Amino acid sequence: MSVTDEYLQNNETYAAGFAGPLPLPPARKTAVVACMERPLNVYGVLGLQEGDSHVIRNAGGIVADDTIRSLAISQHLLGTEEIVLIHHTDCGMLTFSDEQFAGILEQASGERPNWTANSFPDLEGDVRDSIKRIIDSPFVKNKSSVRGFVFDVATGKLHEVS
Amino acid sequence: MSVTDEYLQNNETYAAGFAGPLPLPPARKTAVVACMERPLNVYGVLGLQEGDSHVIRNAGGIVADDTIRSLAISQHLLGTEEIVLIHHTDCGMLTFSDEQFAGILEQASGERPNWTANSFPDLEGDVRDSIKRIIDSPFVKNKSSVRGFVFDVATGKLHEVS
Repeated sequence: MSVTDEYLQNNETYAAGFAGPLPLPPARKTAVVACMERPLNVYGVLGLQEGDSHVIRNAGGIVADDTIRSLAISQHLLGTEEIVLIHHTDCGMLTFSDEQFAGILEQASGERPNWTANSFPDLEGDVRDSIKRIIDSPFVKNKSSVRGFVFDVATGKLHEVS
Repeated sequence: MSVTDEYLQNNETYAAGFAGPLPLPPARKTAVVACMERPLNVYGVLGLQEGDSHVIRNAGGIVADDTIRSLAISQHLLGTEEIVLIHHTDCGMLTFSDEQFAGILEQASGERPNWTANSFPDLEGDVRDSIKRIIDSPFVKNKSSVRGFVFDVATGKLHEVS
């Protein structure tokens, strides 16, 4: 049985206890941008209840154009106001350069991607850059609470980047 | 107190019971791509344990270039093999057109984005398109299990799109 099939079995249990639909806009008017990686269970780390927040995740938790797209939809159409960014220690994105990754893909596929991996050498620096990209974007309208954190995978704690 | 501050208080409770670091690669070698929206608590819906899978989320759960970037890093550097795509009924992305959203942003900011919102009129159609984008990408190397689902927000159930 594949992992996907096991997840589908889990879903039957979930659906059996499902309480029914929630309204579309997030209850807590918050969007979280976080890394895709395994140590970060965003629901546990922030104590999110089902339906509290939008959750946007990608490799690194970076603010790419596609992140701005999601945040713009979140704020303009679904009424969120606060933004929480989370990177984490021991992040895979610290372990390679964009050039190295393009080389890996070229060797595996014969093609180089027309995008960069957006790896970063410095966690706090990338959190600051990510906050700046949001502040500088004309398409994110609510900027009074844009805060960034590093999640420490050894302790489970969030540390704010100032 | 802002919502972000409340989430930070929740994190203190989480950290107090934290079991310590996990190895970097996901235990179940799976990456999940899902919509950012509130009805979809991916951990609950799939019965994910902390550290099972990479979780990639954006507005719609679409497969944009940035999604391919995350999947390429997930598979080439962190060893995942299966991909699970999840859209959901009552999705915000069904409620507007790309042109309407560009107009909203232009009216609010005076600028039009150089990206599109990637809204879609048909859930199952976009799941199929998303699977195709993954299958067609030279940068995703493990394609033997790329499966797409619609999560029904009324019942909590996943329905596979074939």
